[in-house]
Amino acid sequence: MPSLITETPQEGFALAITLSQKGVAKTQPDAEVRKDLRPDYARDPDSLIHVSQVIAVHFQTVAAANNYWRD
Amino acid sequence: MPSLITETPQEGFALAITLSQKGVAKTQPDAEVRKDLRPDYARDPDSLIHVSQVIAVHFQTVAAANNYWRD
Amino acid sequence: MPSLITETPQEGFALAITLSQKGVAKTQPDAEVRKDLRPDYARDPDSLIHVSQVIAVHFQTVAAANNYWRD
Amino acid sequence: MPSLITETPQEGFALAITLSQKGVAKTQPDAEVRKDLRPDYARDPDSLIHVSQVIAVHFQTVAAANNYWRD
Amino acid sequence: MPSLITETPQEGFALAITLSQKGVAKTQPDAEVRKDLRPDYARDPDSLIHVSQVIAVHFQTVAAANNYWRD
Amino acid sequence: MPSLITETPQEGFALAITLSQKGVAKTQPDAEVRKDLRPDYARDPDSLIHVSQVIAVHFQTVAAANNYWRD
Repeated sequence: MPSLITETPQEGFALAITLSQKGVAKTQPDAEVRKDLRPDYARDPDSLIHVSQVIAVHFQTVAAANNYWRD
Repeated sequence: MPSLITETPQEGFALAITLSQKGVAKTQPDAEVRKDLRPDYARDPDSLIHVSQVIAVHFQTVAAANNYWRD
Repeated sequence: MPSLITETPQEGFALAITLSQKGVAKTQPDAEVRKDLRPDYARDPDSLIHVSQVIAVHFQTVAAANNYWRD
Repeated sequence: MPSLITETPQEGFALAITLSQKGVAKTQPDAEVRKDLRPDYARDPDSLIHVSQVIAVHFQTVAAANNYWRD
Repeated sequence: MPSLITETPQEGFALAITLSQKGVAKTQPDAEVRKDLRPDYARDPDSLIHVSQVIAVHFQTVAAANNYWRD
Repeated sequence: MPSLITETPQEGFALAITLSQKGVAKTQPDAEVRKDLRPDYARDPDSLIHVSQVIAVHFQTVAAANNYWRD
């Protein structure tokens, strides 16, 4: 995460996903454990919707940082 | 998602829905699995309300990007 | 939803409710199913609080769009 | 709700509470049912925290409307 | 809550905590009941995380009110 | 927390994590209890996603405070 500035909304969305994963990884630093949990939440609609919500909050930040790629 | 700019609030809302689905699809990339989960959450009021919340967050971003379609 | 601009905060709140319902309706387009689910969540405090939260997020957007009806 | 403008932060907080209750009342218009549900959620910590969150979102809106009562 | 303006971020965070507690207290005004519920949620990770979220929303408001203590 | 201003987005993200933990610590001040709860939520996907959400809200605040590290 060298910068919040991205070329396109698409890249900004990718950054938002990275940030949401980073929030999880900082709380559970063991990559092996995170991998074990994956099948669980990747098939649980409520978990998926919740992940989508975290991405939405980060995308709001990234979009504002980029002045909504208006220019 | 070439741009966050839309002609109307209606199109902005449609974009917010797309963004919320994209957040799910990036976490569960298997379209078949997502399809299997659909009957589940589409009949669960709490899931539906949660989806509506994610859309609301994205709509906030899209609306700000479009200066609330004031002009 | 022709516009986010409303005459009064009261109308803005009504629009926020409409937007939160629209988020649900786009995910579960079958009006019959939505009607069946209603008795469920309309008597579940947690569901009601969650609906109220989605309305709050949309009201934030609508209020900003209207410059908080300051003028 | 004639206006989002209040004299003090204290009154602004009271308005945020009113708005959060209004979000519930619009979804469950039957005051009798709402009264029946009250003992339930008023003793459930998670419900109380969730209500507090909805108030927080509305307070954010009201505080912005009042330019944070800076003047 | 005479004002949202605080000297430091530290005091602003303390105010955010006060606001989150106030949101609960207004919904469950009986201090005795709130005290009884405390052991419950103070040992439930999910409740603690949720409280932390409400504080985060209020801190966002307080930080904006103070222009992020930039000066 | 002497200041919300950080040199880089990376440091800003670290501050957001600190703030989310501080929100928990203020509600459950007993470090021993918090340590006991850790194995629980650090292996619960939904808890991890929720923590990530709280971080996202704080990161939004910190990023705005730093003018998104644009300069």
